[in-house]
Amino acid sequence: MLLVQKYGGTSVGNPERIRRVAKRVAAAQDAGHQVVVVVSAMGDTTDDLINLVHEITDNPSEREMDVLLSTGEQVSMALLAMALKELSKPALSLTGAQAGIQTDNSHSKAKILEINPERLQAELANGNIVVVAGFQGMDSLSDITTLGRGGSDTTAVALAAALKADVCEIYTDVDGVYTTDPRIVPEARKLNKISYDEMLEMASLGAGVLHPRSVELGLKYGIPIHVRSSFNDNPGTIVKESKANMEKSLAVTGVAYDSNVAKIGLYDVFDRPGIAYKLFKALSEAKVNVDMIVQSAMRNEINNISFTCSRGDLKKALEVVEQLMPELGSDGVTADDNVAKISIVGAGMVSNPGVAAQMFSALSEEGINLQMISTSEIKISCIIQDSETHKAVKALHRAFNLAVGTK
Amino acid sequence: MLLVQKYGGTSVGNPERIRRVAKRVAAAQDAGHQVVVVVSAMGDTTDDLINLVHEITDNPSEREMDVLLSTGEQVSMALLAMALKELSKPALSLTGAQAGIQTDNSHSKAKILEINPERLQAELANGNIVVVAGFQGMDSLSDITTLGRGGSDTTAVALAAALKADVCEIYTDVDGVYTTDPRIVPEARKLNKISYDEMLEMASLGAGVLHPRSVELGLKYGIPIHVRSSFNDNPGTIVKESKANMEKSLAVTGVAYDSNVAKIGLYDVFDRPGIAYKLFKALSEAKVNVDMIVQSAMRNEINNISFTCSRGDLKKALEVVEQLMPELGSDGVTADDNVAKISIVGAGMVSNPGVAAQMFSALSEEGINLQMISTSEIKISCIIQDSETHKAVKALHRAFNLAVGTK
Repeated sequence: MLLVQKYGGTSVGNPERIRRVAKRVAAAQDAGHQVVVVVSAMGDTTDDLINLVHEITDNPSEREMDVLLSTGEQVSMALLAMALKELSKPALSLTGAQAGIQTDNSHSKAKILEINPERLQAELANGNIVVVAGFQGMDSLSDITTLGRGGSDTTAVALAAALKADVCEIYTDVDGVYTTDPRIVPEARKLNKISYDEMLEMASLGAGVLHPRSVELGLKYGIPIHVRSSFNDNPGTIVKESKANMEKSLAVTGVAYDSNVAKIGLYDVFDRPGIAYKLFKALSEAKVNVDMIVQSAMRNEINNISFTCSRGDLKKALEVVEQLMPELGSDGVTADDNVAKISIVGAGMVSNPGVAAQMFSALSEEGINLQMISTSEIKISCIIQDSETHKAVKALHRAFNLAVGTK
Repeated sequence: MLLVQKYGGTSVGNPERIRRVAKRVAAAQDAGHQVVVVVSAMGDTTDDLINLVHEITDNPSEREMDVLLSTGEQVSMALLAMALKELSKPALSLTGAQAGIQTDNSHSKAKILEINPERLQAELANGNIVVVAGFQGMDSLSDITTLGRGGSDTTAVALAAALKADVCEIYTDVDGVYTTDPRIVPEARKLNKISYDEMLEMASLGAGVLHPRSVELGLKYGIPIHVRSSFNDNPGTIVKESKANMEKSLAVTGVAYDSNVAKIGLYDVFDRPGIAYKLFKALSEAKVNVDMIVQSAMRNEINNISFTCSRGDLKKALEVVEQLMPELGSDGVTADDNVAKISIVGAGMVSNPGVAAQMFSALSEEGINLQMISTSEIKISCIIQDSETHKAVKALHRAFNLAVGTK
């Protein structure tokens, strides 16, 4: 088999852990597999680098931030390759650029355009274990880019796709994907498997284990993703397409929450074609990632539009909105970053029409007010006050009886 | 003017110092110059990285060491570019590879083969200050290489040559080149100028300010090198070709010493053509840098050969020598790493035949035994016991009256 294994920052947090990772990788090769390893930066490296930046500027160039932060993975990949050689394993490390990871030039949140896996394939064919820096690539100018949040997972799944790997193993500090955050709900249960769609929703909704970008790639290229712990040998959660037992599956698979949410509301915008387009095009050009959007007609020719984004983007989003207000006809804007998103996810939801009502009822029983609601075929999300997040997660996990399951 | 400025590890040792360097660089641009800046890794970065390696392996892959250590300069170059932008200066950083620095594949001691300055020239033409990582390049496989000792100085002078810069300024933590180490001889005097040849000998002989590789490049391409302090505005020492006043110049310009020396002696080798060739070819293939070589015919058909190398190469050199002993006919080897090299340098030496005698007399008066002697047109070096180094430096500085000079 050809395996891509990805180890996060905690898993390679110090030299001792790097040596432990090397043993695991070596064992996979001993078992007859070809192995590509994707690594994140060691534990606190990124924070340490950012602290240096704060002593120099409050407004660092995104290009230079990428140059700076990409060194973190370069350090851990070199150390892991050394640790593998210390175990007498043929190994070498490649930066994102050397591994052929071509991206666009959106520094700090670059997207992978293409992977040229020739060097990687040649090294694998020579019997090498290849260690690749996660989170980074190269744009058309040969400038270093970073992929932003979830970048290392994305690197791993993208490499698995480019190399047609059999599975992409994501090693992390938890045992797999849970029905909800076990720190909040001790009865939370580890899922043995989950579909891409469900995982995508769980991931998008803040279940931190896998980044949605990597799940999207897994879905697109049909790469099974095995999320498991680097600290033990327990089987984790396998993310893959699964049509079997759909009728039998639970309506709700898990409860997710995301506290990195800010809400912006525009009042009284013109009720005309093109208004939403203007707003969200401008936000997109400013590289604000908009999440939920709710538009509601209140009375004739007047609309309210609300949307959410990450808290880090709030300032930028407000600037865009305020500049556009005259053009949109809006006469008022509100912003609130004391909100959170709480969601339930499940592939069975679409055939269980009572699920939404059950969710709203459980939240209402706890006295939790819903500020925005958004639904898809396999998830329902609500924006609530962030101080009520834990109460909401517990209530929903209980209401849908997630501690007992079949998955 | 087009300036290349190089700042060493002490000069960029922390964010505050990086901001100070940025001000100096900005001032050079404000004065109307185009500026390329070459930086070393911040202060202790390299040592910190090596300490991580020691926790993983005693025998690290040289390729991976280059991957690892090259991150040091990448961090400082990004921070300096940010600091320049904070001063509203257009700036960007380039790794060795991005700056077009092509090297051979001798990891940890790569040599520059060629520089493709197109990207650099384009960025300069756009009005940018370009910050380049010192000490590193890229081989023909696009693998990261490091240039070894003196690598950042070498990067700076090589870029100055490729860009046809007017001057290469080497900023360091001392005020310039001294007649000898001021820590040993307080009367040591700063030289205002020195010829490439003299500087080359001074540098080769252990005067730590400039690495001989960089001086060789300066000589080859006629690039004036200005060695000066990054902590003040004093003029430093200018290294350049100087034919003027040669007759008037002092016989001896400076006294240098090098404690990183080990000595190997082979007794009773065959007195045949090809013996020395065999020995030094094998040492060269093992990448041992041999420094002094002395061969002395003792009696018929029997020779002794002694040579010196760096202490770090002693083990490797001994392995080579011991393997070759039967072939060389040698029946005994000695090795000693408690030795040091002490040298006097001066372009006027060739026309002053009494200089060698004066040197040996000064050392003899201090009771210092000479173990090996080697001479060139502009320098005389002696191997002595290393515990006598300071005594020897003081005696020679006094004997040649270097505290008072004309340069």
